Amino acid sequence: MSEGDRSKVLLGAPVAEAMRSDMVARVAALGDRGVKPRLAIVRVGQAASDLAYERGARKRLEGLGMEVETCALDPGIDDAGLDGWLRDLAADPAVHAILLMRPLPSGLDEAAAIACIPPSKDVDGCTTANVASVYAGDGKGFAPCTPEGVMRLLDHYGVRLDGARVCVLGRSLVVGRPLASLLVSRDATVTICHSHTADLALECRSADVVVSAMGRARSVTSKMIAPGSVVIDVGMNVDDEGRLCGDVDYEAVSEVASAVTPVPRGTGSVTTSVLAEHVVRAAEAAAVEGV
Amino acid sequence: MSEGDRSKVLLGAPVAEAMRSDMVARVAALGDRGVKPRLAIVRVGQAASDLAYERGARKRLEGLGMEVETCALDPGIDDAGLDGWLRDLAADPAVHAILLMRPLPSGLDEAAAIACIPPSKDVDGCTTANVASVYAGDGKGFAPCTPEGVMRLLDHYGVRLDGARVCVLGRSLVVGRPLASLLVSRDATVTICHSHTADLALECRSADVVVSAMGRARSVTSKMIAPGSVVIDVGMNVDDEGRLCGDVDYEAVSEVASAVTPVPRGTGSVTTSVLAEHVVRAAEAAAVEGV
Repeated sequence: MSEGDRSKVLLGAPVAEAMRSDMVARVAALGDRGVKPRLAIVRVGQAASDLAYERGARKRLEGLGMEVETCALDPGIDDAGLDGWLRDLAADPAVHAILLMRPLPSGLDEAAAIACIPPSKDVDGCTTANVASVYAGDGKGFAPCTPEGVMRLLDHYGVRLDGARVCVLGRSLVVGRPLASLLVSRDATVTICHSHTADLALECRSADVVVSAMGRARSVTSKMIAPGSVVIDVGMNVDDEGRLCGDVDYEAVSEVASAVTPVPRGTGSVTTSVLAEHVVRAAEAAAVEGV
Repeated sequence: MSEGDRSKVLLGAPVAEAMRSDMVARVAALGDRGVKPRLAIVRVGQAASDLAYERGARKRLEGLGMEVETCALDPGIDDAGLDGWLRDLAADPAVHAILLMRPLPSGLDEAAAIACIPPSKDVDGCTTANVASVYAGDGKGFAPCTPEGVMRLLDHYGVRLDGARVCVLGRSLVVGRPLASLLVSRDATVTICHSHTADLALECRSADVVVSAMGRARSVTSKMIAPGSVVIDVGMNVDDEGRLCGDVDYEAVSEVASAVTPVPRGTGSVTTSVLAEHVVRAAEAAAVEGV
């Protein structure tokens, strides 16, 4: 196969850049009214993945002129302590948005913590009101940032969804399930696959679009992909040699698919852009309410 | 094909009967504590499908020694009037469960009405808390009765779900979407099809189990069904000759599938049994809380 036949590289940066200009204008408009969008990140402990996401989020939001505060809590904190922090942030009118890093360390009641976050500040779509909104496809609530980022990336690169067969690998509440809801609402025929799926290759080969969110390094191989299909990689794994890699065997799949997202430089920057946009939206809604 | 080769008829009655004995014991135990489970049905107008469901529900619950009251409201009622009725029922400790007949006549705000129902009395799983619970697969909330009934029927007849390919036809919030969630939580590989699906026959023929909830009379034909598969018909339609029929061309599909639910005498009685069980559960929870 010649170099020219290789698949298109679906980079995240152009999507993030396209989202940026709109946000700059909206942040400026809020500034004219004396409002500076502010996100509070609540992190319990020091998990490497939390710290990496926090760095990316802070850089993105601060680069757009927004404020980020981190509540770094001791891993020994109890439910009452954590819920107290969340309730204070919920009540603070200067805080427009709250991002609770999950999963919480074991022993903490995640559902109880989430219930302390008002849906209007829940920019990662984990509260029941926002979950139900995504499920219903009413477009009113906040979707979790990662699956919404996948939709933005697909739209940016003009991938047709209406009537397309889309295979979602993974059924987590953070990515797979909400992504399936968003895709169904956009008229795709969606198959949800997971660890119990009998023949993952068969499912993937039948699809026009494959989105992998399994968290298994390079497990989506070229044999699983139909020629010409689009492959989106939401995986963030570390391989045996300590390198960051996705769920997709990128080099091999690039020879078969029409388009693939790389890892890194793929969906990650779109996720933090969606987070930033949600914070702007939350601040705008609070400003309207405050008038 | 000889008569002996025809598919198994998956009747609803044996499933309902199996659920009945457990409920009889639970209603008796509640009676010993002076509690009689009570359902309030709230109906706006006189839609024929609402009246039919109401009759079936009343017969089922009263046959189990439970109480049913109907609030039949004038179709000219406004949002404030409807919400007032719902709030009164929500506050009444003698009412354990509320069933709001949907869809409401146009002009009424369904989301606002649903928000007046406490999740603990929401036996048809329409409140955001119960929607989110089904979505998360935590088994805590009330699922909508129809999709839970499909699961009960599949389990009763020993249909394997773990790793099975299940095709769900329809993406409504009342059947298709929650059913997909319940099936994914039970480890099935689920494909959600709908009016925009490019090749419905292809999707159905790939499946071990097909569940149709499209509401299109006899639109699932024998050519769409793989030999040996299981076909569940949730459709309730009236054909050109005024007869009740399902989504499935039952006679023809019976020659191909290994098992099919008929309409009538299929899923309907399981749905009302699930409703009855939810009312018992709501009364039990209220009795525990009242201790």
